[in-house]
Formats: sequence, C-alpha cells, structure tokens
Amino acid sequence: MIAETIFVGTELLLGNIVNTNAAYIASELSGLGIDTYYQTVVGDNKQRLKGVIELALTRSDLVILSGGLGPTQDDITKETAAEVMGRELVLDEESKDRIIAYFEKRGRVMTDNNFKQAMIPEGAIILANDNGTAPGVIIESKDNDVMDKVTKRVVLLPGPPHELEAMFEDKLIPYLQEVNALDKQVFYSRIVKICGRSESEIATILDDLINMNGAVTVAPYAKTCEVHVRVTAKAETIDAAKKLVKPVVNEIKSRLGDSVYTTHEERTLEQTVVDLLVANDLTITTVESCTGGLIAGRLINVPGVSEVYKSGEITYSNKAKRRILGVKKSTLQKHGAVSSQTVKEMCLGAAFFNKADVAVAVSGIAGPDGGTPEKPVGLVYIGVNVCGQVTTAEYHLKGNREKVRNTAVAESLILLRKCILEYYSKKTFGTP
Amino acid sequence: MIAETIFVGTELLLGNIVNTNAAYIASELSGLGIDTYYQTVVGDNKQRLKGVIELALTRSDLVILSGGLGPTQDDITKETAAEVMGRELVLDEESKDRIIAYFEKRGRVMTDNNFKQAMIPEGAIILANDNGTAPGVIIESKDNDVMDKVTKRVVLLPGPPHELEAMFEDKLIPYLQEVNALDKQVFYSRIVKICGRSESEIATILDDLINMNGAVTVAPYAKTCEVHVRVTAKAETIDAAKKLVKPVVNEIKSRLGDSVYTTHEERTLEQTVVDLLVANDLTITTVESCTGGLIAGRLINVPGVSEVYKSGEITYSNKAKRRILGVKKSTLQKHGAVSSQTVKEMCLGAAFFNKADVAVAVSGIAGPDGGTPEKPVGLVYIGVNVCGQVTTAEYHLKGNREKVRNTAVAESLILLRKCILEYYSKKTFGTP
Repeated sequence: MIAETIFVGTELLLGNIVNTNAAYIASELSGLGIDTYYQTVVGDNKQRLKGVIELALTRSDLVILSGGLGPTQDDITKETAAEVMGRELVLDEESKDRIIAYFEKRGRVMTDNNFKQAMIPEGAIILANDNGTAPGVIIESKDNDVMDKVTKRVVLLPGPPHELEAMFEDKLIPYLQEVNALDKQVFYSRIVKICGRSESEIATILDDLINMNGAVTVAPYAKTCEVHVRVTAKAETIDAAKKLVKPVVNEIKSRLGDSVYTTHEERTLEQTVVDLLVANDLTITTVESCTGGLIAGRLINVPGVSEVYKSGEITYSNKAKRRILGVKKSTLQKHGAVSSQTVKEMCLGAAFFNKADVAVAVSGIAGPDGGTPEKPVGLVYIGVNVCGQVTTAEYHLKGNREKVRNTAVAESLILLRKCILEYYSKKTFGTP
Repeated sequence: MIAETIFVGTELLLGNIVNTNAAYIASELSGLGIDTYYQTVVGDNKQRLKGVIELALTRSDLVILSGGLGPTQDDITKETAAEVMGRELVLDEESKDRIIAYFEKRGRVMTDNNFKQAMIPEGAIILANDNGTAPGVIIESKDNDVMDKVTKRVVLLPGPPHELEAMFEDKLIPYLQEVNALDKQVFYSRIVKICGRSESEIATILDDLINMNGAVTVAPYAKTCEVHVRVTAKAETIDAAKKLVKPVVNEIKSRLGDSVYTTHEERTLEQTVVDLLVANDLTITTVESCTGGLIAGRLINVPGVSEVYKSGEITYSNKAKRRILGVKKSTLQKHGAVSSQTVKEMCLGAAFFNKADVAVAVSGIAGPDGGTPEKPVGLVYIGVNVCGQVTTAEYHLKGNREKVRNTAVAESLILLRKCILEYYSKKTFGTP
C-alpha cells in the first residue's frame, strides 16, 4: 500500500507554523511499513485542494489529509474530499451529540456553524475526536470490477497536533494494521550513527551497499560532524525484515569500526559519552571559552547526567583562565589563549578545581572579529584530560560564529569519546 | 510572481526530521510579498522528483528546491532539475576550488565524489555556499516568444538549515528583490520583536491591525517566549513602501511599550541584553543548574560579548553550589536546591566569585525524573542580581527536558532585561 499525505492550511504556506504533523504521520506510517512517496501542503482554496486530492488518488492507495475540518467558512477539506469521492454530506447524530456534550462540559457558547463539523460524507467511517469537536473521517472507495475490494482510501484528520496524534494512535492505527495485514508487507529499519567521518568518505566506503538494488536500502544522512546511515528492509513478516537488515548493519559496523557510536535511533552522541563515563565510573567537567557553556549544555541534556557531571566553568577572559584554572601567565603571553598549550593547562586545572576525573577544554576564535593571519577565525583548540592523560587537537572550522561554535561542541564530544576509549583500550593492553 | 517549494529527501518522508526549511522559506517569501500555493516533499527518486518539478513549472513562475545537493549517489536534485530544464552539467572551476579549499582548511579527507558538487547546469547563476560544499543554483528559462523575458526560475538550495538560511538571506533575497522590482512591485517589511507576552495577548491588542485589509499586512509569529510581528507593505518604490510601514510599526511600539525589545531583523534578545550591559558599563556572570551552560551559550553568541562577560559556572550539584557560590548548607536543607532562596544566594555568590556587576542564576527540575508533588517537573526558579539588588521569579514550564531548559534560558534573558531596565529607571527617579 502506497500512502501520501496532504496538509491543508494557508498558515503553513505563510510559514506561520512548522508542519510537525508531516513528520509525525510520516514516522507513524513508516513504522507501520507503509511507504509514502509524496507530502503536499496546500492552502484553504477549494480548486487547488481538489486538484491535489485528485492527483494523489492517481498515484497512491491511501491519501491522508490533515487540517481544514474546523467550523469556519475557510475550513473546506471535508466538503472538497466528499466532492472528489462523489459523496453527499449527511448529518451524523452521534457526532452532533458529541459536539454538544463537548461544549456543555466546558460551559462554552456553541454557535450553529459548529454543527457543520457533524456533517459526514455518506457511508464514511467516523473517527471520534476525544480532544476536540471535529471528527475524523475515512472514505473507502470500492472498485466495481473487483467485487467489494477497496482500492482507494481517503482519511481526514484534524489539524491541531494533540487532536491529530491521539486520533491517529487510538483510531487510525488499528484500522491501518488491519488493512496492512491484508497486504502482507512489513517494513523494518535501523540507523547506524557515525562520528568523525565525512558523508563523502562514508559514501565511498559503503558505495556497494548504497547502490545495491534489492529488498534492503542503505541511505546516508549528513549531520553536524556526524553521518547517520539508515538501513531499511521490507518483507512479509517483521522477523523476515529484521533478518535482512541485521547482516547489513553488521557489515557497516565492521567497515567503520569505532566511528560507529550507536545503532539506536534515540541515542545521541552526548548520551554515548555520558554512558562511557558511567560505565567507567568517571566524573567529568567542562571548561569553555568560545563555546561558552554549550558543551555542558549538551551533556546536561542527558537525563541522569548528575551522576557524572557536578560542575564546570565558562572561562571567557584570560584572567578567568588564570584565576579559576591556574593557566600560567607565561603560557598565555608566549602562546596566546588560543593554543594547544593553553587548552592543555585549562583541562588540567579544570579537573583539579572541579575534582573531576575527566575534563574537556575549548579555546578558539569564533569570529566575526578577533582573527589574525596566524590565527584566523575558525581556529579552535580542544583539550581532553582523562585521569591526567591529556590529548589536544587543532581544528579549522568554517561558517559564521554560531556554526563554528556548534561544530566545536560536536568535535569536543567526538574527541572526548575517542580519548576515553583509547585510555581504556591502552589500559587493557597494559600500556600506560 | 507565484512561487512553489519542493523539499527533496527520503528522511522527510520517513519522518526522521521535521521540515523546518519549509516554514523558513515560506515566511521569507511571504515577507518578500511572493505568494506560495504549494509545498511538496518528495524522496530521493529521480522519476518522482522529475514529475514534481515538471508539475510545479506548469503552475508556478518560481520553483525553489531544497536538499539533494550532497556528494552521494542518492543526491540527484541538480541532475534532475538540469534535465527538466534541458541543461548539461558542466564543471565550475570556482566551485571546485572552493570545495578543495573547504577540505584543506578543515584538514579533512576529500574524495572524488565531492567534485560532483562542482558540476553546475550550463548557463546557471551560482550561489556560493559559505557554510558548506554544495553551491546553490538558479536556472532561468527564457520564453522564446517574448525575447529575453525570463518566464520561469528554478532555484536549488542545500538542505542543511544553516547553509540554506545563510544562502537565502545573503544571496537569494537580493536576486528576488531585483526580480520583484522588474514586476514594478517593491516589498518592504520590518519586524517588531516582543518578549514576555503571549501570542494570543498580542493578537488581541493588535487585532484591528492584523485584520485590516490594505497595502500593509501585519502578521504575528510565535517563538520561544517571544512573538515577532512582521509588518509588510507593497508599493511601486521602496520609499513609498517604507512610508506605509513606518506608522504601523510606531503604532505597535506605542501599544506594546517596553515589551518591544527591537525592530531590527538581525537583533536577538541576547544582543539586546548585551547592549544594555555595555550601555550601562556593567559586567555579567551566569550560574546555571538545570540550564547547564545554555544561558552563557546564548550570551556568548553575541560578537564582542568579551567586553561584559568574563566567566561563569555550571553548578549542577549541591556541593558545587556551596563550594563555588557559597550557598548555605542550611538553605539547601531547608528550602532545597530548587527554591527562590537558593537562586538568590546563587546569584549573590556568583557576582562575588566572578567579580561581576550583574548575575543570573537558574535552578529547576527539567525532568523526566526528579519531580515530586510539591516540586513537579517544569518548576524553575530564576534569580537576577543587578548591583546587589536581587529579583527572583518562579516558573512552571511545560514540555520535555529540552523544551523546559530552552524555555528557562529565554525566560532568564527576559528577566535580565527587565531587571536592568527597572534598576536604571528607579535610579533615574531616585528610588533605591
């Protein structure tokens, strides 16, 4: 079954709101193993909406519309969809009673146009709305050639996310699962998250996998200092699909080794770093200059980080680097604040001041000002101290101030992970 | 001129990411007074993408595509658009050099498939990418009947938001403004940025302006703890448009008073706070618990912040609050870490430890764990110390851990601005 989604609302075309419903429905459908090839946004305009629905029906079996079910004049989705499907709108008594009850319960004044929401295309399946007044609707069209075989489905859902999501989960998913069962197609996907390698590098290493034609698809997506590779398979059962995905994920992991930091959708790089610290019973501190708190900000977004993170500093001025972290005046004078010597002393002083096992220190020139020919904007030094073993690295980052800072944060997390892994692998082999 | 946008990427169809580019481009276009009737999302599939572009060209004059300009096999936007427009791809030496320089500067491994990004449709206008490797492209097609009159325009932009937004603002808007000018229509818009008031409150106060029909449009956009009101006018000359916009902007400012923090597109709330500090010759420090560095992170995104920001701390544990900031053990025992008493002592101690005039302190329960019936998830206290005058405020914030933290950061900046303004207005009136 091929699905396609249509989002109705001029506010989307004006950019007044972000279309989060599109991502929500898309991930729910792919979770159900239903392919979606198109998403369309159209305004509250009958002629254009009609054209979009008609086009969708020529290329998809399941057309899901969201928005335009409200009581006002410019809510035209239901009328338009009914017209395309050749149905009359008839008053649904149950929906009418639900609407009356909804207003009574909230002691709110009800206007006649609210009854507009109780008008339903004849023969449609009604999805009761437990969080609002507009009921959802499923219109099934049967192919006359094939007796009683439903060939096209049009689903109308309300626009407000909390109404749409509740209705989708409670009412629509059970319906779609039944339909799907008849289709005998399931779809399963895993993500492989990689850090410290470019998308083109990954694409070269995985070229044969990305270009293999078959039941398994491999697609890389570039993120800031990360590449996420999605491996997807379609089969008759979920187990069969998993059997197809597993060897490909393992092959990718074996080719990319330590660069792979997780194969779990919801796990982030900062989560991986925090887990490494917890697993090795280490505490961590951060001392930041140009990134000014953003590394701590990402680490502290991990629930339960309090176990490993106690305190950290933003040492933006040279004075602060000396006073709080004990960076030597001579070091700052000889090498400057943006130097590997300074970040080395910063992460040594940080571990001491904060009584932490691991420390990360960053100093760089984020721009737009402050750059020199020897030390241009984008030059960043990161130092990592794991139980006294210090590693420093130099980076030349591109982009505006915000981009340079966010990239420096990502590189810091990557270097942290690398240094902790190396420290323990060395320890295992007995080398100090 | 009618525009239409197309977003290319299977990750959008799978719901892996939310299509924020759609809202960004939509609001920019409406700001320019360019109508958009359709937005389409399509996957990395040549045949389907081709069909979408061809359809768009039948109903729109300007077709803007985003995504699929990367170096990998499944990045097919440029090839497909060139095919539809009947152009060959030719190597652009300048783009090639930019890509080589980009990799050299970052000391990263470059692979041959990166040169794919330097292949440009012949005769196209190139939009240099200052934040990545994929250049943007404008393909103009001339109508043979009307000598040299450009009738259709296809614009290709990169997918990563920071690359797309920078390119749109710096390169595409000037081009579109010229095109608009040829249409004998000039659009001018100003933004009024408001903090500390809800969108519905603003909508009520500005109801008559928002609903007036004429050459001037007033549209509010909700942001985190902010509302941005865009005032746009259409006229034959830029001066005529400015004359229409100015009185409306002034009317909005007079109705909303101090809640308006700027009427400049590029100015942020943190910029406004930093400017207030500079103007009053004050230094500032930040001490953060649940926001863990994000307030400092936003302040330090302001170029030249070094003048007012020297250092700050993340005091996540109670020990750190006591050791670094001198919060009393009895205070933590009696009132807890999340209390107005604790943030009061935090911002007093912070100013002392960091030798700063102004200090902001935050302590709260970001969740998902750590909530109790008395102190539920979302409870946040913020303290602001302006030259010894301390203000504390209690907040009950909604959403997940990330949302609670980001809202707390925004509220902190708003309270900072309010307290500094009040401190000086009081001083002017001679009250301590």
